[in-house]
Amino acid sequence: MKLDRAYSLDEIARLISGEALGDASISASGINEIHMVEAGDIVFVDFHKYYKPTLSSAASVVIIDQKTECPTGKALIVHPDPFRAFNFLTQYFLEKISSALPEQAQIDSTARVMPGAHIGNYVSIGARSVVHPGVVIYDHCEIGNDVIIHANSVIGSDAFYFKRRENMHDKLISVGKVIIENGVEIGSGCTIDRGSTGNTVIGEGSKLDNQVHIGHDTVIGKRCLLAAQVGIAGCVTIKDKVVMWGQVGCAANLEIGEGAVIYAQSGIAKSLAGGQTYFGSPAIDARMKMREIATISNLSRRQ
Amino acid sequence: MKLDRAYSLDEIARLISGEALGDASISASGINEIHMVEAGDIVFVDFHKYYKPTLSSAASVVIIDQKTECPTGKALIVHPDPFRAFNFLTQYFLEKISSALPEQAQIDSTARVMPGAHIGNYVSIGARSVVHPGVVIYDHCEIGNDVIIHANSVIGSDAFYFKRRENMHDKLISVGKVIIENGVEIGSGCTIDRGSTGNTVIGEGSKLDNQVHIGHDTVIGKRCLLAAQVGIAGCVTIKDKVVMWGQVGCAANLEIGEGAVIYAQSGIAKSLAGGQTYFGSPAIDARMKMREIATISNLSRRQ
Amino acid sequence: MKLDRAYSLDEIARLISGEALGDASISASGINEIHMVEAGDIVFVDFHKYYKPTLSSAASVVIIDQKTECPTGKALIVHPDPFRAFNFLTQYFLEKISSALPEQAQIDSTARVMPGAHIGNYVSIGARSVVHPGVVIYDHCEIGNDVIIHANSVIGSDAFYFKRRENMHDKLISVGKVIIENGVEIGSGCTIDRGSTGNTVIGEGSKLDNQVHIGHDTVIGKRCLLAAQVGIAGCVTIKDKVVMWGQVGCAANLEIGEGAVIYAQSGIAKSLAGGQTYFGSPAIDARMKMREIATISNLSRRQ
Repeated sequence: MKLDRAYSLDEIARLISGEALGDASISASGINEIHMVEAGDIVFVDFHKYYKPTLSSAASVVIIDQKTECPTGKALIVHPDPFRAFNFLTQYFLEKISSALPEQAQIDSTARVMPGAHIGNYVSIGARSVVHPGVVIYDHCEIGNDVIIHANSVIGSDAFYFKRRENMHDKLISVGKVIIENGVEIGSGCTIDRGSTGNTVIGEGSKLDNQVHIGHDTVIGKRCLLAAQVGIAGCVTIKDKVVMWGQVGCAANLEIGEGAVIYAQSGIAKSLAGGQTYFGSPAIDARMKMREIATISNLSRRQ
Repeated sequence: MKLDRAYSLDEIARLISGEALGDASISASGINEIHMVEAGDIVFVDFHKYYKPTLSSAASVVIIDQKTECPTGKALIVHPDPFRAFNFLTQYFLEKISSALPEQAQIDSTARVMPGAHIGNYVSIGARSVVHPGVVIYDHCEIGNDVIIHANSVIGSDAFYFKRRENMHDKLISVGKVIIENGVEIGSGCTIDRGSTGNTVIGEGSKLDNQVHIGHDTVIGKRCLLAAQVGIAGCVTIKDKVVMWGQVGCAANLEIGEGAVIYAQSGIAKSLAGGQTYFGSPAIDARMKMREIATISNLSRRQ
Repeated sequence: MKLDRAYSLDEIARLISGEALGDASISASGINEIHMVEAGDIVFVDFHKYYKPTLSSAASVVIIDQKTECPTGKALIVHPDPFRAFNFLTQYFLEKISSALPEQAQIDSTARVMPGAHIGNYVSIGARSVVHPGVVIYDHCEIGNDVIIHANSVIGSDAFYFKRRENMHDKLISVGKVIIENGVEIGSGCTIDRGSTGNTVIGEGSKLDNQVHIGHDTVIGKRCLLAAQVGIAGCVTIKDKVVMWGQVGCAANLEIGEGAVIYAQSGIAKSLAGGQTYFGSPAIDARMKMREIATISNLSRRQ
């Protein structure tokens, strides 16, 4: 999430009553969790084993639970509970950003929002888009032009992102949005989660069939086809013109190359190169999978 | 889709500014895409490799993108973009048909439509049927007697049917309906797409659990049981008394015989004979699948 | 289901015009179908092969379709159609119980029910809970404190529970409820069925992602995590801290031990011990499954 302005290290440390270390001249203009972090961002870390990747990430300001050596060109803020501090900051900044925006949804005069659809605050809906009954669009989501959203789909529900604590799961508060680009069609009963701090994006001209689930911070390219009951976890990158047939599942934090085709019910457990066809759970090259199926069948008949 | 009256070849050609060839005395009384085509229908073809099956189909009038030899007893209409011409015609005829119908939904006085359900135009709902809150029924769908539709199910959303063009996917406009016969129960969060030009049918007494998806033009027989999260693609024929357990998926354009039983999570990739039990993805005879599972287990332990 | 008071054998027999046999002093204070039966309950049986388990169950009063020897300490009520008699009784008792309750939903003043949510009668919603637009909560469900239910989820739809008759499926009428304990979060587009006669329970602090389906009478423990599109059938017991990744399916009438982890797309066909990790359809020990996958891959390459 981009902030409304640059915040100095000292300002940020004071907001969360933390202790600032490192280059005092550093400021931050964004805030993101580690999967989405960019230069200029605030990030947090609270597991020792993630210290190294976080401290060597693009982040400028790291909220951390122990004093440690500060890398050059970065600053640290020591806080006893970085997760809670991060949640506090994202909400604080979201309110700052929101206060500069018109609260009421901006719906183009040529768009058609049907009775029984629920449109949140700070939402925008572009020209000629159609929102069917029972659709729920949470705050801050952006719907482009010529988009169709079928009945009872949900755009912008919270990320499924929890920190395991001693006696409960603590929720990372979602402050990102869903951006649906021009010409997208979304079937009925779909659910698309907002980004935790970044954006979930459905790229231009992509088509989703019914009951598709898209996780937080996932970015889907242009002109993809996702058949019914496909489920994509969080932080996935799907390049342009990918085709997934029905009930395909895709694990978090991976990338699928341009034009890949995934056969029905496949389970994608690692990143897949583009331009090829995959099948199986876990998904592998489709011809190889077909050969495996034949091998098993032959062995089984022989026994 | 049946038309409101017979249309002469010349009338149809003029509606789409196309060039008529072949038997000028031919008229059409229906319009369907190739999977649903019947005698007397208008159909379209725009891929050379589909010329032969389309020209030898039951259709009376073929909208085609190139001049070609016209089979005896048929007529052709040459048009630079048959897909677009077909979309124009289906919408034109749907409006003609609709104008003769009462726009307001016909809901039997003994039916119970709960607050927060959304009923489209030209819908009919039969005696003693119950429609729970949040259900959305699109225009033209027909709900029989003694039907129960649980909360947030969607009846009649558009077919997932696109033509791949140079820079986008062009949508086949859905003009068919969903017909839900007497005594059907539909769980919560289901989605049933309307036919593209034909009808999607849920046969008498069939029961669908929650989050079931049924694709366009699929016809389900009588007294079938479909457990939760089953997904059936478009143009599937399921005969009477078929049982599918949870999360079964079924590919498009195939047929499942009477009384077939499909175990949970199976993936149906080709037509299946009735009266038998199937398992696996792809689904095969269940005992054979069980033997395969045992074979793999034994081999793996030995290594 | 607990009754409003104890009912004597004679009272029950008269309600359904059945013939009482056995200990006439027996009374019943509850009614449950066989999977949920407890001491003091009324139960029914109408298949000869289930006579033995039903007659030796904890039930006090058995509605049965034939005269048979009555076990000591129990009573029988002979009725030509025990299924229909049982449906009559559960509805009769539910009305008795309901008449003592305030019909209007009891919503804590600190709870937030958003516009477009539908709350049934006899529902309770605890402190600080948030119910998003399009959520449907059926009658009699209980929502605890600090619960979040995301848009378009359905709480309390009917059990998928039918008796196969000559020419139709007869529905067991659901009279149980859904109980959602404190601190639970439910994603968007989920469906949770009410118990048939018992309760479906989501335990304290458990988190469900989007499009999760939970069947009737299933009891989920505390602090479980169920990822998107997981489907759990009816009468399942899931102990505390179980984790299921996306699209896992679980068959009916089984138990999953504390802390079990189930990888994505697995299909659980039998009870699983706690503290272990499982994968596959059917699900087995995850390392064993990985070895099987490697075995198949090696064999297939060799051929």
